[in-house]
Order: sequence, then C-alpha cells, then structure tokens
Amino acid sequence: MTGEVNRQFRLKQRPVGRADVTDFDFVQAPVPVPGAGEALVRVLYLSIDPTNRVWMSDIEQYMPPVAIGEVMRGLGIGRVVTSNSERWRVGDTVSGLLGWQDYTLARESDVFSPTSLPNDLPVPLPTMLGACGVTGLTAYFGLLELGQPKAQETVVISAAGGAVGSIAGQIAKIKGCRAVGIAGGPEKCRWLMEELGFDAAVDYKRADWRDALARATPDGVHVNFENVGGEIMDAVMRRMTLGGRMVLCGLISSYNGDGKALDDFSPILMRRLSVRGFIILDFMPRWEEGSSQLVKWVGEGKLKCRETIVNGLENAPKALDGLFEGINIGKLMVKVA
Amino acid sequence: MTGEVNRQFRLKQRPVGRADVTDFDFVQAPVPVPGAGEALVRVLYLSIDPTNRVWMSDIEQYMPPVAIGEVMRGLGIGRVVTSNSERWRVGDTVSGLLGWQDYTLARESDVFSPTSLPNDLPVPLPTMLGACGVTGLTAYFGLLELGQPKAQETVVISAAGGAVGSIAGQIAKIKGCRAVGIAGGPEKCRWLMEELGFDAAVDYKRADWRDALARATPDGVHVNFENVGGEIMDAVMRRMTLGGRMVLCGLISSYNGDGKALDDFSPILMRRLSVRGFIILDFMPRWEEGSSQLVKWVGEGKLKCRETIVNGLENAPKALDGLFEGINIGKLMVKVA
Repeated sequence: MTGEVNRQFRLKQRPVGRADVTDFDFVQAPVPVPGAGEALVRVLYLSIDPTNRVWMSDIEQYMPPVAIGEVMRGLGIGRVVTSNSERWRVGDTVSGLLGWQDYTLARESDVFSPTSLPNDLPVPLPTMLGACGVTGLTAYFGLLELGQPKAQETVVISAAGGAVGSIAGQIAKIKGCRAVGIAGGPEKCRWLMEELGFDAAVDYKRADWRDALARATPDGVHVNFENVGGEIMDAVMRRMTLGGRMVLCGLISSYNGDGKALDDFSPILMRRLSVRGFIILDFMPRWEEGSSQLVKWVGEGKLKCRETIVNGLENAPKALDGLFEGINIGKLMVKVA
Repeated sequence: MTGEVNRQFRLKQRPVGRADVTDFDFVQAPVPVPGAGEALVRVLYLSIDPTNRVWMSDIEQYMPPVAIGEVMRGLGIGRVVTSNSERWRVGDTVSGLLGWQDYTLARESDVFSPTSLPNDLPVPLPTMLGACGVTGLTAYFGLLELGQPKAQETVVISAAGGAVGSIAGQIAKIKGCRAVGIAGGPEKCRWLMEELGFDAAVDYKRADWRDALARATPDGVHVNFENVGGEIMDAVMRRMTLGGRMVLCGLISSYNGDGKALDDFSPILMRRLSVRGFIILDFMPRWEEGSSQLVKWVGEGKLKCRETIVNGLENAPKALDGLFEGINIGKLMVKVA
C-alpha cells in the first residue's frame, strides 16, 4: 500500500437542516499502520442510514455524537488486509463501525471494533450488510420482540420502501399478519405489493393518503412499526385498535430538525396504546440468533431484499442526503472498494 | 318526596377552553319514579375529576362524550331510597355514574348502573369515593400493573397533590421506591413531604422547577406516573433512565384545548422508554382486589387521604373549573346531600 492514502470524511460542522458535502472535510490521511493487537481493514461497503444524520447533531441520542474533526461514523463491511491480532485473520470479512474512509484500524481495545463474519458467507456482501445485518436485525427484533404481532393482526410499517421497513413488512407476512406499508411514490408501492407480498401499500405523496390508509386497515392497526414520526405516525395512531402496540424504531421526519411534531398524545391514553422505543444495540447479544434466521429466510426465498448501491466513497454525503429524499428502494449503501 | 324536584345540570354547549357554568342548563326536573327493575338513588357526593372536562368535548375519548341536552356525567356515591329491583335494597350505599343531579334512576338494563357497596363501610363515604374508590384504584392498578415499580427505583408523579397522584406516590413508598411529586404551590408540596412521606416535592410554579426536578432525581426517573402531559411530561421524560416506564394516566394540561403539545418523541426512542396509556375501566373486573387492599392500607395508616369538599350541587361547575386551577388538595368532590 505504499503511496496509497486513506481518504476520510471528517465532520467539519454540525449541519443545519439537511446535511450536505460542505458539512465534511474530505481529507487524505496516511493509511494507518496496525500496531500490536490491531488489524488494518479495507472498507468495502458503507451502510447509509438515517442514524448517520442523527450522529452528526449534538442532540440526545443513544451514542455520543460524532465530534467535530472526527471521521464520520458509519456501519460497514470490510476485509482484513493486515493483522497483528489473533482476533482477525488476513482475508476475514468484518462488519462494524468502520467509518466513512478507505481504511480503518480494528483495535482489540475498542469495544466497537468490527467482528469477523463466517468464512463462507451464505449471501452476497451487500445482503450481509442489509437484510442479514444490522438492518434486518432491526426489523426482526423490533417487530417480533417489541411488536409481538399475532397471526391475522394488521401491522402498519412506515418508510416501508426503505431498508428496515421492507424487511419488517415481509416478516409480518411470514408471521401471518396483514402487512400494510406506507411509502413515497408508485414505484415503491408497486414493489411492496408485487415483489414483497405486502397486502396494501399507501403512497403518502398522494393527497388522499389518509383515506387510503383507512381503506387499507379496515380492522384498525394492531401493530405499528414506526420509522418516520410526525404526521405519518399521527395518522397511524388514529387508526390503532384498543391496546395496540407501537414500535418506535425511527423518527426520520425529525432528524433534520424540520419535522412536524406530534400534536397530540391523547390516542396513546384513550386507546391504551403501548409505545416502546427501540434501538438495535440492545439486541446485539442475540445477533447470531437473528442473523441465522434472516439468512435462512433469504435462502428459502421468503425474504426478498434489494439494494440501492452508490459507487464511490466520495459520494457518501450525497447518498445520505438522498436517503432523506427517498432515492433508495430497499437498502442504501456506498460501494467503497 | 312529594313536591321535591330533581335538580340537574344538563350540557348546553361544548365548552371552548375552560368549562364554566354557562356551558350547562341547571334545570328542575321531576324526581323520577322507578319502574320494574329500577331503583331511585339519592346522590350524596359527586366526584370531580379531569375526565369530566373530557366528557364535555366531542374529542377522541374512551366513552362517548356527553350529548348536548344530556345530564352531565359524573361518578358519585348515593343511597337507594326506593327500589323495584332485587339488585338494590333501600338504604344501600351505591357508587357509579350517578350524574350531576339530586336523584338518579338505577336500571338493571344499564351496563353502567351503580353497584352496591358493603353495608358496613370500613371508611367514611368521601374516602370510599376517593382513596378507596375509582381514584385509588386508578393509582393502584396504573402504578403497580403498568408501572411495575421495583424497590429503590425513583417514581415521579405529576399532579401529585391531586386525588390520584397523592395516592400513587404513597403506593410507591409502600413498595419501597423513592417517590417524587410534582405539584403546584408550597402548601401542596409541604403536604406531600410532611404528611404523605414523599421523598421530594417539586413546585412547578417556581421558575427553577426543572432544576429542582433534576436535584430530586439524582439517579434519573425509572417510572413516571403521568397525569399532566405537556411541558411537565416533557421535562420528566428527559430525566428518565434507559428502559424507563411511563404510565400515561392523564393529560390534564390539554383537556381545555390549551395545552402545549410535546415537541419531541425522541426521548422515547433514544432512551427506549415504554409508554402505556391507562384507563381504569380496563381494570374494573379487579375492583374488589384493589379496593380491599386500599381499604386495608387506609386502616393501617399507610395510606393517608384528604378531601376538598365543595358544598351544594349548584357549585359543581365551579368545582370542576377549580380543579383546573388546582384549588383542591387531594380528592375534590361536591357534597350534594
């Protein structure tokens, strides 16, 4: 790697509203040299998630925000190219918080250091980052553990055309539920219905989406897998049955600081809803259990996945902005190498 | 009862903002004559609760709103004066939805008809309507079943100087928790600390109440028994521990349509809170169990209660308005006869 550089996006300033490329410094650092107990990882794919935007702001969140000057935090998949540690062998595929850069140092001393995946991966790398990785696990544990859907119940998923939502809806179908997705635009809605087997898809970009939601949920909503917040969440709450369960997995409508707040807690009270916040970190000890089930479903064709892959590390900021535009169908990621 | 009339408050119009006497017609109707399967009940005490205000508005709620022209709905305690039913004997003390009137007809055919209390009541009538009635049961089942407080945990109760809150805090103490009350004014706060044994009381009428709340909850808040909503709920949510539980029992700050909405759902997500709406109706099958425990605690001196009693049916609307001013310490009721 003589002569090679490690390109890195470092956080330059906290974005106001939508994040863009000017919020980062795109620098060229030397490729790090691993010391004892360290390994050098080539970043292959970076997962582009709503939480990236959260990490850029100094607001309440489940991890410290990325510091100014720090390499932008990001989940990814990479390959070990040099190793001075028993934990990583050269050639291992690893996943973890690799950061928006070409190379990352894996350190034994770091609690968030990447973990090696099995040698014979049963699915392609992008699927391992998406449907069978943190994305799929988020849908799996969020829906099943917190949502507790029962056969015949109606499950409404917002941002259903996205990475987590599209998996959550399919798991609802596997469990015998009626799956109703809310997504933006006819292409995503068609994909949900025709490819993924959702029972109904509501296009929130249409003026009559609230009526469509009502028609799609004639028995009300038993479980809401909520990724969006704001007026979409509010509309779903008003369709919920007595004692309905709401899995609060994301609030993407407010991550840019421009979301319309929910005006009214009263449906929670009057309908005796249960609302539970969910962060996948809490289920990391059960990664193996969830991932093996997801891999199995993908293998059996019960779980379909799709990735929107943006080429080139240099396009990561644009990809993140596109996520909030809804450019992706399924999992959005950046191919770094 | 020849010559006697039945004074009734009938809902005249749906209030805009705070309700007052002009929202009712105060009429004189004939005292009803019970037919077969019916009994005549003299209303003795009426419970004045935030939910009375909810019932006056045509908003989403857990029962139909009171119709225009209908007798105002209200919980109360009365005595059977005539009976053509096996279910009620003359002299029985009954409790139920008696309405804002001097007399009510108990009907076997009515699912909400009043129920007879034991002959030898172990506590005075006002206590039976308050700490050992629906009020106490609300605190009991809401805190214990939904809040699941464990010894040493911190429980924060809003509207702690009110009927339900003052009982909930004492039950938290019985269960070995740290009980922190939020109440308006020094008198209520003193009562919570000196009489009821709360560990701390925060006066939300003081400018520095948020700091006081922080000082009162050094280990954060494990359980929030929420009666108020709005900015008080918001402040408590921001003190909650990871995985904290919120019992949403009331939203009194918004019942007059003037409440400040919660701006931010993100603490629910980021702290993985569990928020559950609670209406005591769901626990009515367990009335006996709850009431006998409450009676026992009152008898043992573990549960203290206090009533603010307004004299005269004619003052019921003023009493309801006073509830939103916080005129009451403990349970607010109207003595009708």
